[in-house]
Amino acid sequence: MRLIIIGGVAAGSKAAAKARRQNPQLEIIIYQDEAELSYSTCGMPYVIGGVIENSRSLIVRQADEFAKDGIQVFTRHRVMQIDKIRKQLTVKNLQTDTEASVSFDRLILTTGAKPIIPNVIGIDLQGVVTLRNYSDLQGLQTLLSSQQPKQAVIIGAGYIGLELAEAFQKLAIKTTLLEKSPQILPKFDAEIAALVHQYVVDKHVELIVGDGLVKLHGEQGRVCAVESETGKRLAADLVVVAIGIRPNTALAQDSGIALGTTGAIAVNAKMETDAEGIFAAGDCCETVDRITGKPIWMPLGDIANLQGRVAGENAAGGDAHFSGVFGTAIFKTFALQVGCTGLSEKAARDCGFDPISLLVTKTDKARYYPNSQSLTLKMIADKHNGRILGAQAVGFGGVDKMIDIIATALLGKLSCADLENADLAYSPPFSPVLSPVIVAAGALNKKIDTVCF
Amino acid sequence: MRLIIIGGVAAGSKAAAKARRQNPQLEIIIYQDEAELSYSTCGMPYVIGGVIENSRSLIVRQADEFAKDGIQVFTRHRVMQIDKIRKQLTVKNLQTDTEASVSFDRLILTTGAKPIIPNVIGIDLQGVVTLRNYSDLQGLQTLLSSQQPKQAVIIGAGYIGLELAEAFQKLAIKTTLLEKSPQILPKFDAEIAALVHQYVVDKHVELIVGDGLVKLHGEQGRVCAVESETGKRLAADLVVVAIGIRPNTALAQDSGIALGTTGAIAVNAKMETDAEGIFAAGDCCETVDRITGKPIWMPLGDIANLQGRVAGENAAGGDAHFSGVFGTAIFKTFALQVGCTGLSEKAARDCGFDPISLLVTKTDKARYYPNSQSLTLKMIADKHNGRILGAQAVGFGGVDKMIDIIATALLGKLSCADLENADLAYSPPFSPVLSPVIVAAGALNKKIDTVCF
Repeated sequence: MRLIIIGGVAAGSKAAAKARRQNPQLEIIIYQDEAELSYSTCGMPYVIGGVIENSRSLIVRQADEFAKDGIQVFTRHRVMQIDKIRKQLTVKNLQTDTEASVSFDRLILTTGAKPIIPNVIGIDLQGVVTLRNYSDLQGLQTLLSSQQPKQAVIIGAGYIGLELAEAFQKLAIKTTLLEKSPQILPKFDAEIAALVHQYVVDKHVELIVGDGLVKLHGEQGRVCAVESETGKRLAADLVVVAIGIRPNTALAQDSGIALGTTGAIAVNAKMETDAEGIFAAGDCCETVDRITGKPIWMPLGDIANLQGRVAGENAAGGDAHFSGVFGTAIFKTFALQVGCTGLSEKAARDCGFDPISLLVTKTDKARYYPNSQSLTLKMIADKHNGRILGAQAVGFGGVDKMIDIIATALLGKLSCADLENADLAYSPPFSPVLSPVIVAAGALNKKIDTVCF
Repeated sequence: MRLIIIGGVAAGSKAAAKARRQNPQLEIIIYQDEAELSYSTCGMPYVIGGVIENSRSLIVRQADEFAKDGIQVFTRHRVMQIDKIRKQLTVKNLQTDTEASVSFDRLILTTGAKPIIPNVIGIDLQGVVTLRNYSDLQGLQTLLSSQQPKQAVIIGAGYIGLELAEAFQKLAIKTTLLEKSPQILPKFDAEIAALVHQYVVDKHVELIVGDGLVKLHGEQGRVCAVESETGKRLAADLVVVAIGIRPNTALAQDSGIALGTTGAIAVNAKMETDAEGIFAAGDCCETVDRITGKPIWMPLGDIANLQGRVAGENAAGGDAHFSGVFGTAIFKTFALQVGCTGLSEKAARDCGFDPISLLVTKTDKARYYPNSQSLTLKMIADKHNGRILGAQAVGFGGVDKMIDIIATALLGKLSCADLENADLAYSPPFSPVLSPVIVAAGALNKKIDTVCF
């Protein structure tokens, strides 16, 4: 019995490990088109900024560790075609440029996602980069050390853009973020995005919103400026394109495996595609929003790992389930922590809920305890029954804890009244006597009472 | 309409503030027998250790802030008697030593708790102290600066004892902890307590377990040694008695207000005692364990605040409820964070559950991220349905987050299978790609599957 996994970054390497634990007899093969596998994409901005000294430390599992577990890894091998009926793959060795046919019993697609590259003049100039694969990281590192750029423009002010803004400032690179949407962080509600916006500007990062890229100017083959939709010309010797990613679905599509409404590969809770014996996991497939019940594409590292576990276990004969996501995410830019879970107020309204919300600003520790930091928490609930729908938090400490508490509350379908009665861990070094979550839930509950009765 | 609150530390001052918000017309009076009110007891060890520089910063609300809200505060006034039928109090002014009779419409008892003082020879010697009230803190500060003790013995190795061990080491005071139980932290399971034990010993604190105090020796009226049950004689120029506290119920008892089975004042979910119009909140009253459904006494600062809010709101005409506790607690000693929520494995067994448990040791951030810290998490679940019953965690980072996630899971009555599918906030500076909570829930779920089917 042979399991083949296409791709070996987050979902793929996790699936392999889990399949091995589930079934010690299984033959397991990973085909990965890059030279590296099993690395943390999320850690890359910290390598760029020098917070993590060695890019090799992003590699979670070395090739010999896979071998030790009896998992065969073929790097620089690209799967060109899947015959889902005959259960055969056409695999190209990218080093020798030769193709071979390989049969499988079970297959897991973890083909990931790729950056969206706008089709504009100058996009191929030197100095225009993305940061997604390990080779992107190596390329950017080389560029930084050989060219020592002084002025960067980052196209897109999402997580990656804001993480890189911090990294570039550490390298004394003047940075401008150019965001086409009217606000940074479009998934966040406007007042939360505005807090992040102001903070980043205070950190001397130039932030332009409501304006997009139209053209890149070059000199001798190297980028020298970005031209925006409104006609701004921004000098730049480094341009990072970070406007988003899309799922790598070409292989699945060509093979007749169904995509979902989001455009990513459709899977059920067992991570099965519509083709018998073929699973998908990670950034290439879609999942379910556990609040709305609708399909959603949520390409995040932890989700890829969770889905990889389920796909690996099931492909090896187990019976695991992945229940979907709440859209929980977190990042930091400079010292500011920014996180969210569940629906934003705007998204809740768009999904047909009647949301009510509340902001509190509190400290993460007892106010009198040294280094107590402020944080602002927005909680969103359903006006009709008080059920919590989501939260967003921004601050200098404790944002991860607030978000995780509320993500767990979403899992339990808790209402504000429930959460107001939470029994959370208090001691001055860890929390104010009443957690911001409890304060927010209590105040929101009161607001619901007032509005509804 | 007059509301009188007896006591003004955590529950009392919170109740007053909440009652004022609920009813701006209400006459509100606080009688507090100490000179200070509205202070944080939990912050005291950090004042002793110098982490918090000024003891005044522990005072949450100054007297003039109460006045501004139209709350009359009488410090150094002790309520001697409650006539619950005629709704009258006898109040003694401790400065003038005069008594007066005062009527009330609503009354809230927040009389707190007091340290258990063992009845042994030498207990009244100078240099033998407790740390509970603000005057205790001032007394200990004075003693430390005037006597500069060199050798302390702390009787009792609970939270306070372990927090003070750290504080004393900062002051270069050699410290011995003497604990009568066979392990430190009796509420924790043995293997978790053992981790804390070893750590504290490594920090050069002497730790003696299974041995209690029998006698204190003095020289010229000052303590000079502690004699233990097994005949040890421990030199000491400072002895802190920290073997526990008991609820201050004398006033309630004398007034015919019912106590519960725990020995603390009995209250319902509205924080009402059995006497009409009389409420109780905080360390003087009992509550309900939300897992077992049984009465429990849980004298902690955050619970006092939560109960104070409910009592204050209800006494002022509102309709709030306090749903009980999960026994969530946290403290730190040196750099080690120690927390728990729900039942320990031992307590679960004692309560008639059939528990199963699992320990995982993980990092609090991505392993490769700087300053990633290790933590050990024990999760306890019901073998029959996988419902989570409790957790304990020890480590150098993230313990508060782990405990709060699981405390919220308890609130939602979640099972391991539910929690394994949590969508928690991941980014390298905040969490490993799979939270230790998810790893533990997954492994425990697997263990339950194996055991049960």
